[in-house]
Amino acid sequence: MGKINVLRCVSCKKEFSLNEIEYTCPSCGPRRGTLEVLYNYDALKRTLTHDYFRSLEGRTMWRYLPLLPIENRRFIQPLRVGFTPTYSFPDLASEYGLKKLLIKDDGQNPTASYKDRASAVVVIKAQEKGKSVITCASTGNAASSLAGFSAATDLQTIIFVPRTAPEAKISQLLIYGAKVFLVDGSYDVAYDLAAEAAEAFGWYNRSAAVNPYLVEGKKTGALELAEQLDWEVPDVVLVGVGDGSVISGICKGFDELLRLDLIERVPQVIGVQAQGSAPIATAFERYNGNEIVIEDIHAHTVADSICVGKPRDIIKAVTYVARNGGHFVRVSDEEIEEAILTMAKQTGVFAEPAGAAPFAGLVKLAAKGELSGKSAAVMVTGSGLKDVAAVRKIVQAPIEIEPLLDAVREHL
Amino acid sequence: MGKINVLRCVSCKKEFSLNEIEYTCPSCGPRRGTLEVLYNYDALKRTLTHDYFRSLEGRTMWRYLPLLPIENRRFIQPLRVGFTPTYSFPDLASEYGLKKLLIKDDGQNPTASYKDRASAVVVIKAQEKGKSVITCASTGNAASSLAGFSAATDLQTIIFVPRTAPEAKISQLLIYGAKVFLVDGSYDVAYDLAAEAAEAFGWYNRSAAVNPYLVEGKKTGALELAEQLDWEVPDVVLVGVGDGSVISGICKGFDELLRLDLIERVPQVIGVQAQGSAPIATAFERYNGNEIVIEDIHAHTVADSICVGKPRDIIKAVTYVARNGGHFVRVSDEEIEEAILTMAKQTGVFAEPAGAAPFAGLVKLAAKGELSGKSAAVMVTGSGLKDVAAVRKIVQAPIEIEPLLDAVREHL
Repeated sequence: MGKINVLRCVSCKKEFSLNEIEYTCPSCGPRRGTLEVLYNYDALKRTLTHDYFRSLEGRTMWRYLPLLPIENRRFIQPLRVGFTPTYSFPDLASEYGLKKLLIKDDGQNPTASYKDRASAVVVIKAQEKGKSVITCASTGNAASSLAGFSAATDLQTIIFVPRTAPEAKISQLLIYGAKVFLVDGSYDVAYDLAAEAAEAFGWYNRSAAVNPYLVEGKKTGALELAEQLDWEVPDVVLVGVGDGSVISGICKGFDELLRLDLIERVPQVIGVQAQGSAPIATAFERYNGNEIVIEDIHAHTVADSICVGKPRDIIKAVTYVARNGGHFVRVSDEEIEEAILTMAKQTGVFAEPAGAAPFAGLVKLAAKGELSGKSAAVMVTGSGLKDVAAVRKIVQAPIEIEPLLDAVREHL
Repeated sequence: MGKINVLRCVSCKKEFSLNEIEYTCPSCGPRRGTLEVLYNYDALKRTLTHDYFRSLEGRTMWRYLPLLPIENRRFIQPLRVGFTPTYSFPDLASEYGLKKLLIKDDGQNPTASYKDRASAVVVIKAQEKGKSVITCASTGNAASSLAGFSAATDLQTIIFVPRTAPEAKISQLLIYGAKVFLVDGSYDVAYDLAAEAAEAFGWYNRSAAVNPYLVEGKKTGALELAEQLDWEVPDVVLVGVGDGSVISGICKGFDELLRLDLIERVPQVIGVQAQGSAPIATAFERYNGNEIVIEDIHAHTVADSICVGKPRDIIKAVTYVARNGGHFVRVSDEEIEEAILTMAKQTGVFAEPAGAAPFAGLVKLAAKGELSGKSAAVMVTGSGLKDVAAVRKIVQAPIEIEPLLDAVREHL
């Protein structure tokens, strides 16, 4: 049976064996019936000690292989995924009244986004399952990471993205050899079409939430953050939220570390949503511990990666954050744009809009005094090179000059 | 005096002390009088052993601090620079008749190019020297890395780029807060203007070749490659060549490792130039061990980062490659474009045109049988996200569809 005990429905708690089920709980459906991957924690606890991790050489997310749903190393791609840098900025921390300000830059992954963590896992699962085609709907990053990680495999990759996806993300898809459908509709529309096509044509579906193994890859950001800080986790971790999968993964990662006695407490996880795309924040605020009311919206925000009106991992996101003791905060597009600028100038980390959203959340909460004296980590989920059009709107244009010293002098 | 012995003119071999000179040898001028930084190798040899490196923790280029022109760690930026991944692709090696095919992906640096290695060093030098303004002419990558590494410092950054620089690179400059002059002219024209302005206004000049410390940063790619391969260097290392600084750095890096007894032989270093921008290859072919004939040209190539008609580090590039036993090869724009595609699809590494040029060189030499049975490393100097316009020309357009299953079926 291996290291995984069961797959469990997040809503009805029914348990399934690994071979019994592919995507979601049949009773609860694709939205409420997402599955949790549960390991044999008692056995793992005996081997996964601080000493064990100190003895490891590789600096990628594969150091957490015992906590990942992968049976052997055969299908692991060589690309360096995970173990992205975690930076500390003491001056900036003081400026915001924090004890410590950390930035974990996942723009430094192979295809320049956090989604590489999930794609790296699921491309392996597809091969373990003997699939020949893998598909995915995406605002852009999940797809380009899927295309990048399947490029050198025998898998054919078929992608559905909204027509509005940024050019860099589409270019990545094409260069990696994926077949790309630009869907005339939002991400939410592309998502449903990908699911329908996967069902109709027998493709393996890597779209968010329905595939239980994605959250496993996404939890590695939490595992790394803890290990990079020598298992002394910060008080607060801020993360941008679209479908809700990344924040679910981060909450699960910290939970598992606590279960394994690798950390003494979990950080408070704060989800940051764009004002025009905040259905999970809304559901969280209405949540009383019983049923989660899902109210989909027409989303709009400059942060394309978290522009999701029909979030697919809303059940996990709300229940995990509630259990964690975290909460949600909304930021405006202007606050996100300001955060891109501040981060780039003050830290040298250039984030795409969704990647800067959690920093905007930090600025907002700090201004209210809610982070005073705390240590906080910001998860940057994508590189600014993913969406340079978003930048040009918020900076001054360069100065066009003739090649003359006087022309330079004029503009000093 | 510290670890550096002298700065020595590459042409007349005159030696200068550190404080005596800033840029180039006054007798030989800025083009022929570039300086070499020479260390106290006998002393270094005693401490820089294989065991020394095995004992180091940090996985950045700062592990080579004893071989870098930096006096202390105070000004080091936190950004994770260097120690980029080196991948091995056995299947692809067989396909090209190689014993081993390695790709070192410097697109995984903080601002996504090899130039980060040089900027990281020179931003520190500027601060050590008490400068307040730093400037640079660039095809794009050197500038964006300079802007990124100086962003969080007190330095003001002033950049000169040709009007044709790719949008992503210009966006990086602006977001990091640099003052950007888009010069109506080629890189070569922008270069001269930057030098003139630096002189007129007392700015510190980070432009290629004239600043002796750049090559020091650029040599770290060679140091890393050797260490990552456990000091068993490949037979051949291929590198794209524009100004000639990167290849000079790589040659110097291997030379120093040999001097320090850290490796037993140097790899043959092969410079790859674009056909329309190959003045260094031409000079090399005409070189008989005496004077180097410099013939500038009007350069043109799709690979903007190596589009240089007036290469500033031509003396070092030619003499270092000659001493190394290497040579140069020219590739067409079509071969470069084909290399981008092959690399992305076969390895998952997405390179900008200049970053794919050395792979194009490898394919060309392999086809001639010149690499049979050899191990070869390709230095990828920039990420494909730096120039997505170059990609869209060489791939099929995505398929635009209505969100209907029948529309998908039609295109399968």
